[in-house]
Amino acid sequence: MEAPFADSSADRFGRPAAGWRRTWYTIIFEADTKAGRAFDLLLLALIVASVAVVMADSVHDYAARHDRLFETLEWGFTILFTLEYVARLACIDRPMRYALSFFGLVDLLSVMPTYLAILVPELHALIDIRVLRLLRIFRILKLAAYVEEYRFLGGALRSSRRKILVFLSVVLMIVVLMGTFMYVIEGPANGYTSIPVAVYWAITTMTTVGFGDITPKTDLGRFIASFMMLMGWGVLAVPTGIVTAEMTSQRLGPRGLRRCEGCGCDEHVREARHCHACGAPLPESVRTGS
Amino acid sequence: MEAPFADSSADRFGRPAAGWRRTWYTIIFEADTKAGRAFDLLLLALIVASVAVVMADSVHDYAARHDRLFETLEWGFTILFTLEYVARLACIDRPMRYALSFFGLVDLLSVMPTYLAILVPELHALIDIRVLRLLRIFRILKLAAYVEEYRFLGGALRSSRRKILVFLSVVLMIVVLMGTFMYVIEGPANGYTSIPVAVYWAITTMTTVGFGDITPKTDLGRFIASFMMLMGWGVLAVPTGIVTAEMTSQRLGPRGLRRCEGCGCDEHVREARHCHACGAPLPESVRTGS
Amino acid sequence: MEAPFADSSADRFGRPAAGWRRTWYTIIFEADTKAGRAFDLLLLALIVASVAVVMADSVHDYAARHDRLFETLEWGFTILFTLEYVARLACIDRPMRYALSFFGLVDLLSVMPTYLAILVPELHALIDIRVLRLLRIFRILKLAAYVEEYRFLGGALRSSRRKILVFLSVVLMIVVLMGTFMYVIEGPANGYTSIPVAVYWAITTMTTVGFGDITPKTDLGRFIASFMMLMGWGVLAVPTGIVTAEMTSQRLGPRGLRRCEGCGCDEHVREARHCHACGAPLPESVRTGS
Amino acid sequence: MEAPFADSSADRFGRPAAGWRRTWYTIIFEADTKAGRAFDLLLLALIVASVAVVMADSVHDYAARHDRLFETLEWGFTILFTLEYVARLACIDRPMRYALSFFGLVDLLSVMPTYLAILVPELHALIDIRVLRLLRIFRILKLAAYVEEYRFLGGALRSSRRKILVFLSVVLMIVVLMGTFMYVIEGPANGYTSIPVAVYWAITTMTTVGFGDITPKTDLGRFIASFMMLMGWGVLAVPTGIVTAEMTSQRLGPRGLRRCEGCGCDEHVREARHCHACGAPLPESVRTGS
Repeated sequence: MEAPFADSSADRFGRPAAGWRRTWYTIIFEADTKAGRAFDLLLLALIVASVAVVMADSVHDYAARHDRLFETLEWGFTILFTLEYVARLACIDRPMRYALSFFGLVDLLSVMPTYLAILVPELHALIDIRVLRLLRIFRILKLAAYVEEYRFLGGALRSSRRKILVFLSVVLMIVVLMGTFMYVIEGPANGYTSIPVAVYWAITTMTTVGFGDITPKTDLGRFIASFMMLMGWGVLAVPTGIVTAEMTSQRLGPRGLRRCEGCGCDEHVREARHCHACGAPLPESVRTGS
Repeated sequence: MEAPFADSSADRFGRPAAGWRRTWYTIIFEADTKAGRAFDLLLLALIVASVAVVMADSVHDYAARHDRLFETLEWGFTILFTLEYVARLACIDRPMRYALSFFGLVDLLSVMPTYLAILVPELHALIDIRVLRLLRIFRILKLAAYVEEYRFLGGALRSSRRKILVFLSVVLMIVVLMGTFMYVIEGPANGYTSIPVAVYWAITTMTTVGFGDITPKTDLGRFIASFMMLMGWGVLAVPTGIVTAEMTSQRLGPRGLRRCEGCGCDEHVREARHCHACGAPLPESVRTGS
Repeated sequence: MEAPFADSSADRFGRPAAGWRRTWYTIIFEADTKAGRAFDLLLLALIVASVAVVMADSVHDYAARHDRLFETLEWGFTILFTLEYVARLACIDRPMRYALSFFGLVDLLSVMPTYLAILVPELHALIDIRVLRLLRIFRILKLAAYVEEYRFLGGALRSSRRKILVFLSVVLMIVVLMGTFMYVIEGPANGYTSIPVAVYWAITTMTTVGFGDITPKTDLGRFIASFMMLMGWGVLAVPTGIVTAEMTSQRLGPRGLRRCEGCGCDEHVREARHCHACGAPLPESVRTGS
Repeated sequence: MEAPFADSSADRFGRPAAGWRRTWYTIIFEADTKAGRAFDLLLLALIVASVAVVMADSVHDYAARHDRLFETLEWGFTILFTLEYVARLACIDRPMRYALSFFGLVDLLSVMPTYLAILVPELHALIDIRVLRLLRIFRILKLAAYVEEYRFLGGALRSSRRKILVFLSVVLMIVVLMGTFMYVIEGPANGYTSIPVAVYWAITTMTTVGFGDITPKTDLGRFIASFMMLMGWGVLAVPTGIVTAEMTSQRLGPRGLRRCEGCGCDEHVREARHCHACGAPLPESVRTGS
């Protein structure tokens, strides 16, 4: 497990030079020492437990039976996360930088709801207290700091940003057009009450989810639906098939039999170990199991 | 368009040396001449039209209104396909070979039902005449002779036979196990009336089809269902992600930024045209659009 | 953002040599200048806003409440798009070429419905005025001019045209055959009212969409459905698995452990940094995270 | 077919040196001899038949009609599998090692339920005898010993363990967050009775299964659902598209036409056989069928 900020925080947040603040920094922000790793594991456990409590709290039966337990646990978590937050800010040289960073904001969002419920009671009238408390679910994002691969994933997504947007825009254009067709063809009587709803159905169909809450009833509607389904599935199946076909064609001749890389003879059955034309051994990865 | 038997029939079915049989062979089995191509196109059109009639005949409204038209068309198709079949057999030296080959059997199956209905009226009692007539749908397989790629597809499938069977067996083991769990957990009251039905549901879930005719109602059932859904979708998503991650990591350094192939410096933003460390130009495919 | 016609319109539509037409051409058809880019951005915003109005207009509640606003906005858009269309035609040397090109037709289709509604009132009786107005949704295709990648996508699709058609034809043959089986086995009583409807169900199943509006009730029907679901999902899963297996087998020996590229020894656990047989360092991409 | 333990059991379980135990070992654990292969095939048939009986036993109709037959068959299988288990333990030098290995435990689980039902009748009150009997379904895992590829699959999965876990954790974070949103937005009235249930729905949606037992009814809910569907499908479609686009771009120039590898000229239509700029022949795999 990697320390969440090891490679960037030293300069970014300002690592203190010495003293108790340096010791705390080593424990909280770094994971080279035993204490640092123990801190990280403990925090991970607290985050998961706290999210589990938020989820359990929403199940009517559990909430009724364990009302006081959840209340207590929740205050426990809030206090612990507050202490962690304060400790983080206290032991770096540039606390504002952390407070405004992604993880700093997540930390704030993790503890704020419980306090807001107490400090600003009028909020009751505007936002359901339950909603506020559910913001605690964002604590789950604190987990993202602990895994190096997430930063790689994030970077890979950012670098492919343009391709993804282009792809998405083509899909959006198709679902808007198709949704409009279905709205005209099927009409509100069959569930397609407006273009936005028809577009929602089109997305359901093209992504092959297919809830079934809205389905085409007319022949033309079903025909267009079939076209959309084949497109949505085909976007996955056609490239996959093409890529595999190209890989296979390098190993197989045009009649689908195994090709000898040496002489090009392509009439070998699967069990053959040597090319019957030139005698060269046939590649092992092709021979076993194919 | 390729003649369906060009590369194999000369020896396989016995191409006649000369005479009217040779002329017919050239037209029917080969597509090098204008007549040969015209024959093939005409036959393709007849096949598609005949399948369309079978489909239209099943729609109650159409069948009622166009009863006599369909009857006449159907006799027309049957006679034409019979003539084609007889012609094929007549102009080769080894007719039995063709009659027993895949396409020979398909040809026979395309015309037999209509005759059986007339010649063996007692069949009425055993097999619904409609079912017999629906066997005509197999004519659609005659189309497969006309496309070279199908033979390649067939060969590729045959050579990967073992891999596909292994994969399928793993899937079958999983759905039998999971289906049995759900049968025990949910029980017949919730739709899982027997293990085979539960296995059908498990296949529905793992292949991400999700009809919704049977759905888990208990918490544990939904938990197992979630596990299965993630597995079925993950089988597609995880490898796709791994392959893409490997490809991307060759272009990007560990922080997801673009890497200069020359010096390994990996801190280039997307718009950069040259490596800021060594000056080498950055690859175009990475620069445009990424 | 690229000018939509930069590389082709100069000769294709006839770029005027000088004068106000040349200035307009630079703004409308090219995006090298500030004015050109501003024009493009403004047009993009107008297109998106206009499509949003068409969509909102279909929602019964909104249409009732904002009736006059939508009417006004719609006339605004129509006038603006008409001016744009006229301007485009006015500032090139070969206006007919543009008028007959894809984007020229889309532009015409974007403004025509509103005018037709006024000029040809008898159209009321034939085509619902709402339908006419919904043709405005085609404006969304004007967006395609602005993204270079669409032309690449279009070209890639065209070049793979044959492969896609072959693939689609195989899928169509399978769904027609399977649909017919299900029509016979399940019958109209279970929802499979005709072969076309059964084929619609077969497409729903093979593309893993699974609406659930029609589901098999008999044992044999469910068995065939299972077979189809495994095929539709398998088309995606089997190639993905094979490709990944091949990539992995180059890194792993037959027992799935990491292989040292140098000496072929294949018994390294994930954390190993050096081959324990020959001492060579193990590749980094294999070591980190695997 | 490979002997299940050929490469590991000789040392792992202790192959006896000589005598009847050696003969039995050769038959049971190895498959080099005719007897060995025959034993394996027989056992495979017994396993499949026994699983089929467990499945048929759950179908109410069959169980009623063939009650005594199933009972008899089941005792037959139990006795045969017990004999096999005892034989395995008897003919190796380290029986405990086998008994505690994966397959040893599966073997035990295959015969235990039937005996438990007889020996510990009080178990009736605690666990439904049917459940016990259903544990027999684990016999299906005995099949895994017979296919070499499973061990490769297992190894490949183990080596990609970390990647899979990271991927799964991202998916879990997303479904917990989205599930919570939908719980707040839609609420119990629309089927989202608690956060765990909403998370179950979120998994249904993101994996594109889409049962339809719970569906969003509000506009905002449908909007979030659309976002999730596009994400779940996009995870499959975007990488597939990117990989294919990269492969195709190596063959095609930026306008999607075929590129001549020699001179880079990229304006060749599909049927071209030679580059019109430099005369070099265009690659065959690109020419045929594209």
